[in-house]
Amino acid sequence: MGVNSNRVEHFACPESNLTIPAELGGAMQIHDVCLPPEKTTLHKLKHRLSEIFFPDDPLYRFKNQTWLNKFILALQFFFPIFQWGSEYNVRLLRSDIISGLTIASLAIPQGISYAKLANLPPIVGLYSSFVPPLIYSILGSSKHLGVGPVSIASLVMGSMLSEAVSPNEDPILYLKLAFTATLFAGFFQASLGFLRLGFVIDFLSKATLVGFMAGAAVIVSLQQLKGLLGIVHFTSKMQMIPVMSSVLNQRDEWSWQTIVMGFGFLLFMLTARHISNRKPKLFWVSAAAPLTSVILSTLVVFLLKSKARGIPIIGHLPKGLNPPSLNMLYLSGPYLAVAIKTGIVTGILALTEGIAVGRTFAALNNYQVDGNKEMMAIGLMNMAGSCSSCYVTTGSFSRSAVNCNAGAQTAVSNIVMASAVLVTLLFLMPLFYYTPNVILAAIILTAVIGLIDYQAAYKLWKVDKLDFMACLCSFLGVLFISVPLGLAIAVGISVFKILLHVTRPNTMALGNIQGTQIYQNLSRYREASRVPSFLILAVESPIYFANSTYLQERMLRWVREEEEWIKANNASTLKCIILDMTAVTAIDTSGIDAICEIRKMMQKRTLKLVLANPVGSVMEKLEQSQLLESFRVNGLYLSVGEAVAHISSLWYPQP
Amino acid sequence: MGVNSNRVEHFACPESNLTIPAELGGAMQIHDVCLPPEKTTLHKLKHRLSEIFFPDDPLYRFKNQTWLNKFILALQFFFPIFQWGSEYNVRLLRSDIISGLTIASLAIPQGISYAKLANLPPIVGLYSSFVPPLIYSILGSSKHLGVGPVSIASLVMGSMLSEAVSPNEDPILYLKLAFTATLFAGFFQASLGFLRLGFVIDFLSKATLVGFMAGAAVIVSLQQLKGLLGIVHFTSKMQMIPVMSSVLNQRDEWSWQTIVMGFGFLLFMLTARHISNRKPKLFWVSAAAPLTSVILSTLVVFLLKSKARGIPIIGHLPKGLNPPSLNMLYLSGPYLAVAIKTGIVTGILALTEGIAVGRTFAALNNYQVDGNKEMMAIGLMNMAGSCSSCYVTTGSFSRSAVNCNAGAQTAVSNIVMASAVLVTLLFLMPLFYYTPNVILAAIILTAVIGLIDYQAAYKLWKVDKLDFMACLCSFLGVLFISVPLGLAIAVGISVFKILLHVTRPNTMALGNIQGTQIYQNLSRYREASRVPSFLILAVESPIYFANSTYLQERMLRWVREEEEWIKANNASTLKCIILDMTAVTAIDTSGIDAICEIRKMMQKRTLKLVLANPVGSVMEKLEQSQLLESFRVNGLYLSVGEAVAHISSLWYPQP
Repeated sequence: MGVNSNRVEHFACPESNLTIPAELGGAMQIHDVCLPPEKTTLHKLKHRLSEIFFPDDPLYRFKNQTWLNKFILALQFFFPIFQWGSEYNVRLLRSDIISGLTIASLAIPQGISYAKLANLPPIVGLYSSFVPPLIYSILGSSKHLGVGPVSIASLVMGSMLSEAVSPNEDPILYLKLAFTATLFAGFFQASLGFLRLGFVIDFLSKATLVGFMAGAAVIVSLQQLKGLLGIVHFTSKMQMIPVMSSVLNQRDEWSWQTIVMGFGFLLFMLTARHISNRKPKLFWVSAAAPLTSVILSTLVVFLLKSKARGIPIIGHLPKGLNPPSLNMLYLSGPYLAVAIKTGIVTGILALTEGIAVGRTFAALNNYQVDGNKEMMAIGLMNMAGSCSSCYVTTGSFSRSAVNCNAGAQTAVSNIVMASAVLVTLLFLMPLFYYTPNVILAAIILTAVIGLIDYQAAYKLWKVDKLDFMACLCSFLGVLFISVPLGLAIAVGISVFKILLHVTRPNTMALGNIQGTQIYQNLSRYREASRVPSFLILAVESPIYFANSTYLQERMLRWVREEEEWIKANNASTLKCIILDMTAVTAIDTSGIDAICEIRKMMQKRTLKLVLANPVGSVMEKLEQSQLLESFRVNGLYLSVGEAVAHISSLWYPQP
Repeated sequence: MGVNSNRVEHFACPESNLTIPAELGGAMQIHDVCLPPEKTTLHKLKHRLSEIFFPDDPLYRFKNQTWLNKFILALQFFFPIFQWGSEYNVRLLRSDIISGLTIASLAIPQGISYAKLANLPPIVGLYSSFVPPLIYSILGSSKHLGVGPVSIASLVMGSMLSEAVSPNEDPILYLKLAFTATLFAGFFQASLGFLRLGFVIDFLSKATLVGFMAGAAVIVSLQQLKGLLGIVHFTSKMQMIPVMSSVLNQRDEWSWQTIVMGFGFLLFMLTARHISNRKPKLFWVSAAAPLTSVILSTLVVFLLKSKARGIPIIGHLPKGLNPPSLNMLYLSGPYLAVAIKTGIVTGILALTEGIAVGRTFAALNNYQVDGNKEMMAIGLMNMAGSCSSCYVTTGSFSRSAVNCNAGAQTAVSNIVMASAVLVTLLFLMPLFYYTPNVILAAIILTAVIGLIDYQAAYKLWKVDKLDFMACLCSFLGVLFISVPLGLAIAVGISVFKILLHVTRPNTMALGNIQGTQIYQNLSRYREASRVPSFLILAVESPIYFANSTYLQERMLRWVREEEEWIKANNASTLKCIILDMTAVTAIDTSGIDAICEIRKMMQKRTLKLVLANPVGSVMEKLEQSQLLESFRVNGLYLSVGEAVAHISSLWYPQP
């Protein structure tokens, strides 16, 4: 345990060190630079794999336990319900019932609306708010995650599947593909969790997601114009330009009754949301608003049946629980590729949202969620859902926020919500007969408006312009090209940022801060002053193939400019270049060649090249490439200060 | 000039610093951490662009010169012939004539052979050894580059074009596409040079190229089995498995006369090459061997005309100079895409080889070549060549090595070689009538054998396993999949290496080396010992989206393990975590969030988080995201030593 347990007995380092004589500035001891402890290739591979896949050392809690304890811990690890379930009591139950009913009032209208967003029968949205939350409450680690359909995944699934199959002309095939896509999404998510490849979703950085969610929100909002304005003939494409032209060209189909009712209730729900945002204690206002709107609008349409004949309504919804859908899985045929592709894309998006929401609320409430375990829970939830007439679900931000604000203590709130949905499915379905579609459009609009986080985008602009570029490209790509491509472009920009940083690293000249052994950037610290006859350069990145040519040219230029300055200011001749390798965190064969070349270039100019403070892996590579020999004698030091002191002492030997 | 010219007047740093009282261990002055000098976004963008595109500051030599001098320097910059031409004398001419004639003896047989490799008429290979060297001698900067057709580019051009158009059935269209591809290759190369995008070819690292060239050499060698064994019906595919099955299945077509002659001369040339490798003074032996073999084999076939009727010969080659081929450029039509794609791939390969060869010989002979200028020279050379019946040419390693060993002093050796080719084109064409094709196969085999550099591959294995993986994948990809895809896979692995390094960085615990202010890795330096009540962690990479989650988990694990060790060893309680940011060379918004989260996590465990020595850009981002405020008070230090000293002094205040 602890840092000392990492020590290995064998150090490749001799005991004796050099000392600078007192006459030359102080009794300064020079230390040798050590090689890191030797490890076999296999050992290094094991260590590397454990850092990649098990950074949090999940088995630590199993140490020093009896077999019975280990069994119990393992059960609690795989089924967290056994962990919090054993400490459950009435007080927790009361909080969970309140929060469960609160999110149920949100889940029921949202479920119906989001299913329509995915071009699926509305009842599927309610089915998806029943089975998945139950599965999650057994397997999931988050106390506050509110599980059910979400707008982004529904949108993406709807758009990707409709490109291949029309939901109007072939609804049965479309439904089959949706369930199959859900199965593959779940399988993909569970595999990521099982193989501990969770870090893959880290590549969808927050900057990328801000732009992506905003773009998707705009697209979803534009599509709701069909429902809000009562247009019948609408484009099936998703992108901004086709949608806007569809809206403006079909002005004759705009229906004033639909518009009045739609915008009226939209205003009502937006106001409720605004109130809840201003006063967090009134969170129940925005939670109750959608259900209230559904009830009111159903009443209005029911009472004004004859006059409001033009307004499209939901119609008949079948009663009863989720029918099993194993027989509806489409596992062979020409559309399988579409289903798999849709599954993977919606799977990644659902996972990203679910993990992000889980982590956010965990951080706010002082507990940890294990990312890989959550992925397995969400994956299994979707796989089970695909066999019981559900489509892709995950933890949604709005639902989890309401859940948290309403005082949820454990995942029992999801069980309570599922029970409320159960009651609705068994008894309350006829009540939705007269619910107008326009209210569903208004509910979706209210929900996605919150995804446009312009404050986060502004903050990105202020702090990191490249992150803002990734955000902007994500946004524009989703709006104008397509959802998967917009996301791919944004990930590409993020990766490009990493490559740019390596390809053109910062280099700087260091100077000494008087009275200390600290060497800092001369152009940043006024107290730093150059050391006569030395040029101390620092490189701030690994030396790889991508930057070795650049570094050779840049160092030559540093030397040339320094020599010109010396000539112009009559300063003492340049004799030694010290390369501070503290921030050179790795090196490859091209980097080794570059150091070799730089040394030869310096030798031709009768300058000595000295390396200071190389990290462990760099020392190893220098040794394996046999370049280390040429630096062993007065060429390698533990710090810049020691290098300066020792080399100066060599120039001015004792009398 | 020099490092002091980078200082900006305004430093964001106050003068006064803190001091540790003497009773607590010494009069140690604590310095404030400065923000880097303020720069506008525009200024930063300008600086970044100049580092990307003009790292060597090419305009420095124009400073402080008269207008006439500037004009002359500019002329010499764009046309290097004016530079070395003005200092030319008879002694240089003599060396260049000798080397020029030597490489001509290599160029003539190689030109004919490589053209056949590209499925082009043999005469095109001789044309390509005439015009391009002349253009290069005016524009090029390398003194030793021997210009002409090369095996790899010929192979790739031949394979990519034959996938679309059969050279046997449609030779005119094939020739047109070849010239068009050369035009696009030249245009692409010249653009890279003009836009100073030369760093793009740095991504083809040496490791990648070793594998790629070896794979291409094996493919070329296998294809020569057709000529060496005299097979008539051969696969048009390039990959190893189709070729080997073709060779073994057509055993009835093997012709013993061809085999005897082919392997006989092959042995002769390999022996000559071996002699030259052992004794560099006898370089002319391997240079003269191909031409000697051509002459001898032509004589043999001529004298034994009747008996050797089965051996295929070159046949009639037209006399005369390069005919203009502007009218043969295929600039519109269904095959244009193939020509463009072929042009870009062969252009990149030709450029990589030419630049690598130029730099190698420049380094050996103590002069510099400007990469971007060379690219423009090679690009313009190919563009001019495409209009004069030449195909893709570049500097070849074998030709340049012979050139250098034969004593070339300037690019005039290329002019001499071109003159020798001119004489051959005008007068000596009939002599090649009876030259057997088998000798061309033997010449190609001898040339490409040298490209299989197993010593370099072994060195890669010893020094850097990931580089070896890139090399191996490149090799296998080229052998079994296809040339462009093999290269793409290898570049992908190289980029993956960079991403892996960022995604899973090294983290370590530091300890103090007694009697100094140096803090080093505890598991590497025996002299380093932990500081009681402190946990000093160092992170060796930028903190980006790709690793922020990992770093949070890893740091929690470091703290947990340290606390367990403390409990087990009854050591003093952990109170403060110091994060050494010297090697954290950059940070983005996800990284800022990660630091915020880590600080909250530490606060919950009543631990103080302190940052030491953040680099300039990290300080800026901390300030812009307003995270800096929370660290200002006793949370930010210039070095780990100062942090330890000051914080310790706070815990034990003066009595």
